[in-house]
Amino acid sequence: MEKKNINSVEEVKNKQVILRDYVTGHPKESDFYISTSTIKLQIPPGSNAVLVKTLFFSVDPVMQFHMRKVQHQHLDGYQYYTPGSPINGFGVAKVVDSGDPNFGVGDLVWGTIGWEEYSLIQQPQQLFKIQHTDVPLSFYTGILGMAGITAYSAVYEVSIPKKGDRIFVTAASGAVGQLIGQYCKLMGCYVVGSACSQEKVDLLKNKLGFDDAFNYKQEPDFHAALKRYFPEGIDICYEQVGGKMLDAVLGIMKVHGCITSCGMISQYNIAEPETLKNVMQIVVRRLTVKGFTHRDHHHLYPKLLDTVLPYIRGEKVVYVEDIVEGLENGPSAIVGLFSGRNFGKQVLVVSHE
Amino acid sequence: MEKKNINSVEEVKNKQVILRDYVTGHPKESDFYISTSTIKLQIPPGSNAVLVKTLFFSVDPVMQFHMRKVQHQHLDGYQYYTPGSPINGFGVAKVVDSGDPNFGVGDLVWGTIGWEEYSLIQQPQQLFKIQHTDVPLSFYTGILGMAGITAYSAVYEVSIPKKGDRIFVTAASGAVGQLIGQYCKLMGCYVVGSACSQEKVDLLKNKLGFDDAFNYKQEPDFHAALKRYFPEGIDICYEQVGGKMLDAVLGIMKVHGCITSCGMISQYNIAEPETLKNVMQIVVRRLTVKGFTHRDHHHLYPKLLDTVLPYIRGEKVVYVEDIVEGLENGPSAIVGLFSGRNFGKQVLVVSHE
Repeated sequence: MEKKNINSVEEVKNKQVILRDYVTGHPKESDFYISTSTIKLQIPPGSNAVLVKTLFFSVDPVMQFHMRKVQHQHLDGYQYYTPGSPINGFGVAKVVDSGDPNFGVGDLVWGTIGWEEYSLIQQPQQLFKIQHTDVPLSFYTGILGMAGITAYSAVYEVSIPKKGDRIFVTAASGAVGQLIGQYCKLMGCYVVGSACSQEKVDLLKNKLGFDDAFNYKQEPDFHAALKRYFPEGIDICYEQVGGKMLDAVLGIMKVHGCITSCGMISQYNIAEPETLKNVMQIVVRRLTVKGFTHRDHHHLYPKLLDTVLPYIRGEKVVYVEDIVEGLENGPSAIVGLFSGRNFGKQVLVVSHE
Repeated sequence: MEKKNINSVEEVKNKQVILRDYVTGHPKESDFYISTSTIKLQIPPGSNAVLVKTLFFSVDPVMQFHMRKVQHQHLDGYQYYTPGSPINGFGVAKVVDSGDPNFGVGDLVWGTIGWEEYSLIQQPQQLFKIQHTDVPLSFYTGILGMAGITAYSAVYEVSIPKKGDRIFVTAASGAVGQLIGQYCKLMGCYVVGSACSQEKVDLLKNKLGFDDAFNYKQEPDFHAALKRYFPEGIDICYEQVGGKMLDAVLGIMKVHGCITSCGMISQYNIAEPETLKNVMQIVVRRLTVKGFTHRDHHHLYPKLLDTVLPYIRGEKVVYVEDIVEGLENGPSAIVGLFSGRNFGKQVLVVSHE
C-alpha cells in the first residue's frame, strides 16, 4: 500500500454511541449519548491495527453485562465499556486502512467493533474475514456471526439431538432461537418454541417451521403449558431465559434429558435472581445442564459455513432480522431487546456501503 | 435340590421393620414399628423367587423418598414402601432357597431386600452374586455395593478428573463421599471435603488422605470458606448436599468446571426448597451440571471390582463404616442419617452368618 504523508490524510466526522455511566438495572436510552468526533482515515504509523468503516452492528442482550461496574471476570474475552467512551459489539465493516498483513483495504470483516462510524481495531486477530458475499452482508451479524456460532454449536456440538427428539426452544424467535429451532427441524425433531407475543408465535409456526409455539405471557402456569406440548417430557431444551421458565423446564424434562443454556435474559436486570424450586430434578431425572457461549466454539466457524451457507442458498433456513437504520437509533435498539420489542435478530445499519 | 414336602418345612419367626404411614417431613423413629411374623423357609412351589436370610442392610438417605406418598415417578426401578409392610433397601444376604437357576442355596448376594430377617425376593435378577469373600461382607453394602457403584461411576465415568484438578467433595465422610475423595487422590488431584463435625474433618484429613477439609456448620459464609480452599476455583465438585452449599459452589467454580451430583440431602426434608441465586453462573462460567444415580451404571460393576478389590486388598483405600447391631435399631439408624449422626457408611447388622 502506498504510504501517504500523515498530514495529508483525510479527516472525517465520526459519530459514536457513548456510555454515559455504568448501568445497574435495565439499560435506558439516557444511559447513552451520541457524540461526534473526528478521525483520520489512516492507522497510526507503525501500528498493526486495522481501521474500518462500520456497516452493521449486532444488537445483543449480552451487551448489558459490559455496561456494569461489577463485571463478570469469568466472561473472558469481553471488552467492557468505559463511561465516556464508545461502546462496542459484534459488527460488519469494511477495511479502510490496515497494518495487519491478513487484512487489505476493501476487505469485508466481522468481529468486535466500536459503535462508531469509523473504528480503529487494535486487535485485528479477532476479526473474521468475510469470503462469501452472495448472501446478505447483515447475516454476518446473525446467522453467519456470533448468534450463528452460538446456534450452530448448540445443535451440532454441545447437545446434538437425535431424530424424533422432543425439543423446546425458549426465546425462540430471537437471534439464536430461530436458528436452533430450524436446525433441529432439519434433524428430524419435534420442535416447540416460546416467545413473548402472538405475532412471534405466528412467525415460529408459519414461517420458521416450528411444530408448535406459545406466547408465554399468556400462560399463568408454565408447567401446565409445557405439559400440554410435552406430555411425555422434553429431551433437549435450548434455554435462554432462566428463572421461572428454566424452573418449569426442570420439572418437565425426560430422564437423562439435557438443558443447554447460552443465556438467561430474564435474570440480567433484576435485583435478586428468581427462586428456582426444581433444581433437585437435576438429580431426580439425571439431567445434564450445560452452560456455553459462542466463544468456546469459534474454531467451528469453517464447519458452520460449510453447513449453513448451503442452507441459506437452498432456502432451507429462514433468518428473520429486525433492521433499524442509523447509529443514533442504537441505544433505543439495545433497550428494546429487554422488552422483547425486536422481531427477530436485531440489526443496526450504520452504512450500506 | 431335594424337594421337601411343604408341610414339613421349617417355619421360623421373622422380625420386620414396618412403615407405619407415609412420611412427609423428616422421618422419625415412630414412623416405623418392629413386628414379628413367621415365614416358611421355602419358596412357594413353582416360584422363580429366591428366599434369603439377611445379614447386613445399607442405611441410605434416599430411603426417605420411598416413604412418601407423593413419589418420584422418574426414579424408575425404585421399590416404594407401603404402610403396614416391611420397608426395603440394599443389603447383603445368604440364599436359603431358590427358584432361580442363577442362585443356589448358600450363595451370598447383595441387592434390594426387605428389612426383615428372612425375605422372599420376587425379582432375583436384580441381585448381584458375591464372588469375593476375602474382604468384609459388609463392604457389599458400601464400597462394593450401591454407594460403591455411585462413587466409582462418579469418578471413573461421569466426571473423570485430570491429575492436578482441584476437587471439592461435599458430604465427604459419608458412604459415597469418602470413596470419591480417595479415588480422586489416587488420580493425583487436590481434594478438599466438607463434613458436619470436627471429628469427621479429622477423619478426612488424617485417615482418608484428603488434602484439607472443613466443618460447614462452623462456616457462616460458605462462599468465603470455599474461597479459602479454592482461591483459583474448583474444577470438579462432587456434590450431594444441594441448597446453600450448591449455590456457593456455583459461585466458585472455574470456567468449564463440572458439578456432578448424585443427591441433595439438604433438600430432602424441607417444605420449600432453598433458593439458589447463582444458577446463572452455569452460563457465565460455562459449567456442566450432571445429575446421576448408580442405577444408570450397574453395568460398570465388573470394572469396579477389577479396580477396587485391589485397592482394598492393597490398603490403598480405607472404608469407614458405622455399624449398628440389630434390625430393631434400624429406624434409629435411618433417622440419624439426616442429622449426620453416622460416622462413615451407616450399616445395620441383622445377622453375622
